[in-house]
Parts: sequence; C-alpha cells; structure tokens
Amino acid sequence: MKLLRYGPAGQEKPGILDRDGKIRDLAGVVDDIAGDALSPAGLAKLRALDPATLPLVAGSPRLGACVGRVGKFVAVGLNYSDHAAETGAKVPEEPILFMKATSSIVGPNDTVVIPKNSRKTDWEVELAIIIGTKANYVSEADALSHVAGYCVVNDVSEREFQAERGGQWTKGKSADTFGPMGPWLVTPDEIADVQALDMFLDVSGTRRQTGNTRTMIFGVKFLVHYISQFMTLHPGDVITTGTPPGVGLGMKPVPVFLKPGDEMHLGIQGLGEQRQRVVAYEG
Amino acid sequence: MKLLRYGPAGQEKPGILDRDGKIRDLAGVVDDIAGDALSPAGLAKLRALDPATLPLVAGSPRLGACVGRVGKFVAVGLNYSDHAAETGAKVPEEPILFMKATSSIVGPNDTVVIPKNSRKTDWEVELAIIIGTKANYVSEADALSHVAGYCVVNDVSEREFQAERGGQWTKGKSADTFGPMGPWLVTPDEIADVQALDMFLDVSGTRRQTGNTRTMIFGVKFLVHYISQFMTLHPGDVITTGTPPGVGLGMKPVPVFLKPGDEMHLGIQGLGEQRQRVVAYEG
Repeated sequence: MKLLRYGPAGQEKPGILDRDGKIRDLAGVVDDIAGDALSPAGLAKLRALDPATLPLVAGSPRLGACVGRVGKFVAVGLNYSDHAAETGAKVPEEPILFMKATSSIVGPNDTVVIPKNSRKTDWEVELAIIIGTKANYVSEADALSHVAGYCVVNDVSEREFQAERGGQWTKGKSADTFGPMGPWLVTPDEIADVQALDMFLDVSGTRRQTGNTRTMIFGVKFLVHYISQFMTLHPGDVITTGTPPGVGLGMKPVPVFLKPGDEMHLGIQGLGEQRQRVVAYEG
Repeated sequence: MKLLRYGPAGQEKPGILDRDGKIRDLAGVVDDIAGDALSPAGLAKLRALDPATLPLVAGSPRLGACVGRVGKFVAVGLNYSDHAAETGAKVPEEPILFMKATSSIVGPNDTVVIPKNSRKTDWEVELAIIIGTKANYVSEADALSHVAGYCVVNDVSEREFQAERGGQWTKGKSADTFGPMGPWLVTPDEIADVQALDMFLDVSGTRRQTGNTRTMIFGVKFLVHYISQFMTLHPGDVITTGTPPGVGLGMKPVPVFLKPGDEMHLGIQGLGEQRQRVVAYEG
C-alpha cells in the first residue's frame, strides 16, 4: 500500500493510492495516517479494503507529510560508507544519532525556506523508516515487525548552524521546512529489498546525489534495534537513515549550497519522488 | 497560577493549585494544560476563575508532567559558569543545544529507571521554560511574551551513552523516565526574578547540587531568542536550561552515579520540588 495525506497544510486528510496512481479518500476509514492506524491491525484493516470502492479525490491536491503527529524525528549521521569518505569523516563504529525538530516537517513538494542568516543550506536524500508499534530493546531479528513502512525524506541541513555554532547537529537540522516527508508511506510488502534501492537528488537539473541503500553502514534492521536501546520508539516516530554521497558541502573544488530559485528533485526506487522550490526567508 | 496535571499516566486531567495548596479540577474549563491553553488568552481565562469555586480533588493523586502534548523538548548544555568549570569544559561562546526525546517525559515523582546496560546514570536539576505562543526569530526584548511559565525538570543523563558512544548527546538524554517535569507550571507573574532562584538536588539524603539561576551563562530571555533563530517554538514546547554544579560525573575523587534504591529530591525556589525513586530496568 501507498498511504498519504493530502489537502491544505494543517488540515490534511488520509488517502491511499489506487492501482492507477489516483488518490482515494480514507477519511471515512481512519482519522489520519498516524498512531494506531500504523499498527499491524491498523494496516490490515486498510489492506482489506478495495481502493476502487473508496471516493476518488478530484484534481491534484497538495500532499502533506505522509505521516501525521510525528512524535520523534530521529536521524542517523554519516551512515553511507561512500558519503563518510566524501566528508573526510571516519566510518563511525556505532550509529551517530541526532534529532530533527518535528516542527521542520512539511509536505514532499512544499517550498523549502533558506533560514535567515544562512549561507550553507544543503540537501540530503534519505530513506526514512516509519514506526508502527512500540519498540523498546528490540532484537535485530524482531526489528522489522515494528516498521509500518518507508518513505523519502530530504534531510535539509544548514552546515554552518550544524557544525560551526557550538556543537550538536540539531541546530542545523531543525529549521521550518527542513523535513520534506513523502510523497507516501510504502508498506514493507511492496519493497523486495530495502537495502537495494537506488536513490538520487538533482538541484536545478544537475544530478548531485546518486546512491543505493546497499552502501548503508548500518542497515534498517540494525538501526531500529540500536535506537531502541536508547529510547522507546512509538507509532508514528520517524527515523531518517542518512544520506549517500553528493551533498553540497562535499562538492569540489568548493562547496555548493542552495540559493533562492533552485529546485530540488529527489527520489528513491519504489518510494516516489519529491520536488521543492527553494526561497529566501522573508520575515 | 500553579497549573498541573494529575491522575494515572496517560490519563492526566488538568488542575490548578488553590491558595491552600490543594488541587482543584480544571477538566470543565480546559481539556489539558497544553497547546492553546498556554496562550495569553488561555491563561487569562484561567486567571479569571476563582479556584475556590472549582471542584476540590480528593486525596493525593499522582502528578503527571505539568505540560501535555510536548512537541519539542529542547535542552541547553553547559549553561552554568560554575558547572562548566566543574566538568573542565570551556564556557561556550553560544548556547549548546540538543534534544531530549519527548518520550522521556514523566511525572515529577515517578520512578526513574536506570536503562539496560547503563553504568553512568546521572542527575541534573534544571529550570525549564514552557512556551505559550509561537516564537520564530523573536528578539530578546520580546522573548518573555512567548513564555507561558516555568517548571522544574530533572534532565536525567546517561554519561556513557551521551559521550562515549559516538557523539551527539541525545543518545544519553532520551531514555524512558529521563525527563521528570513538574510538579507544576508556575506563571511568570509569580516569579519576581527568574534569574535569581535557588536550586538544589539531593541523592539519598546527601546534598549534591546547590546553585542559583543567576550563574546561568545564557539567561531565559536570550535562550528563547536564540533558539528561535534555529527552529520555530510552538505552544507546549519545553526548553530545559542547563544544570548548576554537583552532577555525579563531576564528583571527586571519583564520579558517583545513581544506583537502584536511591532517591532523588530536587527543587527550585518558587517552582516546587520533585522526588524520584531509582530502580533498575527489568525487561
């Protein structure tokens, strides 16, 4: 299944993609793509429906983030061997974890705003994991049973705020619009091998990132297991799992960052694509 | 006003302390001490009530965290000049920000659980700021108009997870029960000077932390202003502002950490006190 949320920001309704790629309305079935709807029982209820019997949504509405009421937005740093090499960082011995503010989350095609005083706003295409059931001290073997699905996240990052303003990355990861999420949550049954997905990101027509989830240092199973040793994951929590090579900070001979007027276009095999226009902050 | 939440975990009701220190039920007035109830209009509505006319709550119910539906739990590191000296760290040039998982939040007197595989669980008495209205790029002069109130937080921390497991402090700050919050939200009109409050923390009868908010490196006004440059703060977001000297990690000749059976007792002048029993994780 491909589950999504559509409509104006803050008033999104739940939807599902039918076999023709059209949006069908789930508002009569669940209140949101969030919380209990993400549990195995919640997903089984949706799977039992024939999308063709649900109301067809007219037109091309805005898409919201594909998950509502995200409790925690956990992120993994330097998790691709080829990206770690690019940044000159050592391959981490254990996952590097940080948090993005949940207030950074927006729809997959919403405008990305370069923050006030920013000179180094950068892109990062990432595979994200959406938690379906409470996970606390789970084993690697059991980890995937806690996963409701996957989606694309652009882990937009301000490199100066992240690394040159007194430590702790959250400062450069949390601005409004820094977390485009979607277009849809894809349930695991539709993904043959989550560790073999091609991914890309273009900026204004230039290919910047090319990667595949097979070069992840720590895979999906291990990450859910690992993070659950340090905090309890709840339904609707999202883990974004790190980015492959090609971020602006790593460009040679000099770093390249986003500027107003740019367009980002990114996607992951089987999970859909995002497009974001980049604008300057206007306060 | 002193606003609080009482009742079983997950089913807390809103309440207010009357002039005799008894709990009065606010369930007929607001749904929770959260979101819009924290706005100036929401607080004005509560202030207009005579607590003596509200239903008296019988007995001594459990207190929950004094704020519900916390969106972000932002924390400031090394923010007391005397604590920075104790840890051997340099005084930061700008605030160090990190996030605690919102799933770590518990009531002020709930049991604190030492995580599995933990050897270095530590205490930190802190003044926390509760946001009342959306704050984005606010000036220092305007910052306090976005504050709904203050409360005590114990920023429980696992030092090995925080600093010896591959960077980024969130890993040692986010375990379940690592965020006791309360007993109540105290509105700013009841605090003569938020930068002149005595604070203490005892572990099993031994005084470990003694401090005063006057030795904060970055004060409340500056912190709200500063954090709002990096992320938008929303009603019900909580900022915990750092700890004074006397954490277990800083004990001489050797660090001292929490063990099962310990009791923490902490408080801040005008904001009330917390007591937590410490137990081992049992899975």
